[in-house]
Amino acid sequence: MANYEHRKSTAVLKISKADGTPLKNTEVVVKQTRHKFLFGCAEFSVVPFANNELQGEEKEKAEMVFEKFLDLFNFATLPFYWARFEPVKGKPDTLRLKKAADWLVSKGCTVKGHPLCWHTLTAPWLLEMNNQQILDAQLERIRREVSEFAGLIDMWDVINEVVIMPIFNKYDNGITRICKELGRIRLVKEVFAAAIEANPHGIFLINDFNTSVAYEILIEGLLEAGVRIDAIGIQSHMHQGYWGVEKTQEILERFSRFNLPIHFTETTIISGNLMPPEIEDLNDYKVDEWPSTPEGEERQAMEAALHYKTLFAHPKVEAITWWNFVDGEWLNAPSGFITKDGRVKPIYYELYKLIKGEWWTDQVRLITDEHGMVNISGYMGDYEITCQDKKATFALDKTNKFIEITL
Amino acid sequence: MANYEHRKSTAVLKISKADGTPLKNTEVVVKQTRHKFLFGCAEFSVVPFANNELQGEEKEKAEMVFEKFLDLFNFATLPFYWARFEPVKGKPDTLRLKKAADWLVSKGCTVKGHPLCWHTLTAPWLLEMNNQQILDAQLERIRREVSEFAGLIDMWDVINEVVIMPIFNKYDNGITRICKELGRIRLVKEVFAAAIEANPHGIFLINDFNTSVAYEILIEGLLEAGVRIDAIGIQSHMHQGYWGVEKTQEILERFSRFNLPIHFTETTIISGNLMPPEIEDLNDYKVDEWPSTPEGEERQAMEAALHYKTLFAHPKVEAITWWNFVDGEWLNAPSGFITKDGRVKPIYYELYKLIKGEWWTDQVRLITDEHGMVNISGYMGDYEITCQDKKATFALDKTNKFIEITL
Repeated sequence: MANYEHRKSTAVLKISKADGTPLKNTEVVVKQTRHKFLFGCAEFSVVPFANNELQGEEKEKAEMVFEKFLDLFNFATLPFYWARFEPVKGKPDTLRLKKAADWLVSKGCTVKGHPLCWHTLTAPWLLEMNNQQILDAQLERIRREVSEFAGLIDMWDVINEVVIMPIFNKYDNGITRICKELGRIRLVKEVFAAAIEANPHGIFLINDFNTSVAYEILIEGLLEAGVRIDAIGIQSHMHQGYWGVEKTQEILERFSRFNLPIHFTETTIISGNLMPPEIEDLNDYKVDEWPSTPEGEERQAMEAALHYKTLFAHPKVEAITWWNFVDGEWLNAPSGFITKDGRVKPIYYELYKLIKGEWWTDQVRLITDEHGMVNISGYMGDYEITCQDKKATFALDKTNKFIEITL
Repeated sequence: MANYEHRKSTAVLKISKADGTPLKNTEVVVKQTRHKFLFGCAEFSVVPFANNELQGEEKEKAEMVFEKFLDLFNFATLPFYWARFEPVKGKPDTLRLKKAADWLVSKGCTVKGHPLCWHTLTAPWLLEMNNQQILDAQLERIRREVSEFAGLIDMWDVINEVVIMPIFNKYDNGITRICKELGRIRLVKEVFAAAIEANPHGIFLINDFNTSVAYEILIEGLLEAGVRIDAIGIQSHMHQGYWGVEKTQEILERFSRFNLPIHFTETTIISGNLMPPEIEDLNDYKVDEWPSTPEGEERQAMEAALHYKTLFAHPKVEAITWWNFVDGEWLNAPSGFITKDGRVKPIYYELYKLIKGEWWTDQVRLITDEHGMVNISGYMGDYEITCQDKKATFALDKTNKFIEITL
């Protein structure tokens, strides 16, 4: 039986009336409005949607999609792939991304930018530069995005897939060049320093698909070198089959020794045929059609629920991001919660039952005592308390044990 | 065609007579007496041999074995496995090991001690201690051995198999405990600091069988953390089959980026049936008999020659140690140059042809010019120059380009 006690907290509310006297022996209604845990998803189509670039049927479908999205998730990852964000040097796509981030924030989402430094989809125009110029451009780019988006986006995947970065040999690119010259640790040090300088209160992640001892040793080396890593990002693209509980727990065990928050940054379980096991780089698998099947959808829902339970049960995990919300995005895979034609798949309902059901503190009616006090116990997050037409909010957290409220 | 030019050097000898005048227009004979490159072997039976513990036939066999050994090798690894070196706390086997080291040094060998810190074969009595006591005992042990043997042994495998050390789970042991608590980098830092403190001029290695990117990243982390590593040790126990040139070169390529000397510290190619590929930890393979076969001996000789050529051709490699000299030592494997019954196997002659043939600057006769000068070109190492009954020695090195000699 999974233990989720570490996700819950208790507090004493002391409720006063506007005149300062205690709200004695009165019924109040308390309900959770937001998870502290970040349940998120990458959903890049929010960019054209929030920028009013969609029309007619497409727009209607997107409205349905985002209604479902916002009902389930409190966290979203936006794309900052350099090749797409700034295809022409000096012409970054800042405004469109700001609108997207703004829209998500207005809907109550925490937003993360992904990624600031990566050898894949990096700016092709770096190839014309020497290594010092590439590094300068990379750091300048980080400072620019992190400072311009501060307040809207305060969480970033600063660097992606560093284990393979200097030995990546599928094609020449500016980032592999500088990583080879500087080494992994020095490059990570530089990119984190630039990000922290631009937004000292930001939350900065390193992220990798490599979950082996190599990534662990890299993190140890970075921490020993004094790099401030705020959270460890672990990808779990399971196009070739669900990891299973044991493997997931083994990885959690190994990465939890750093005593840092762990984010599952890119989680995929597909609802169609599995990708063949001999494919090493998932990007090498190219198919025209990759249908979602009824059996696949049942399996996806069951495995996803098990994966989320395993992660939610582990005290170090603070975020899970699904990749992606609608079928057919990356690799054309049936990885979504919604099919291409807009049908909601079983995974949505299965996870909804957990995120907004089992792990959610639904409306409770409580009676205050003669001092206006009431005990509240529930899943950590934001809460709303109402008494007739009066309303207040508070956060239930590990640290916030005594809360004074005026209703 | 392999290129060995980096193994050679040239120098101008200026030869004077005892009275200070040039030795003009005279024939001198120059010959190599020792390789600069370290061609070595682990041969632990030198301990009972040098301590006069062998009798009769056993002693005669050992004499033959060591004659062959010393004719081929200039480098030997002696065992300092803590469990065997100090089975009872406070009673180290120092004297016997000193005699062994002394004997090897008197025969012209450089000696390396192996290993100072390892989770396997570590002192069992560490288990009774708390972690601080274990660490203290480990560092004290390092300081004791390194200082007591200084002058005889100035080269050590300081720490062995760190990649797996904190996650080694076959049995509880003191070293895994402290590595888990401190982390890999801090433990390596401590053990290297203790060794360097005890013998600042020693040559200190890290050593691993893991040749993956994990070991590479560990070394990068250690160097960034300021650990002085004098050489990178790479094991190549090929009981499951020869790596081949491509894999060997790929590993050399990856580890040479640190610009440190590389030592192949434990090289094995067997002359019998290969160990099955499904065995993960070589120690798990236990057989009563593991015969050396005629076909196996031919293959072993051919593959070993190819392996040595590949390594000798790479400028960063400075040492190769075979594991072991006589069949039947570790794992009972037919890994030796000599069979259990004392027969010299083809590998000995094949490597002899390289080490003392193709890569050896044999006796040359040269005539000095009117200033007593003569040019010498050859494989780097120690040389002897004679003129009638007069003799002198010099070293041919990369740096020593003008050498004055009195004959």
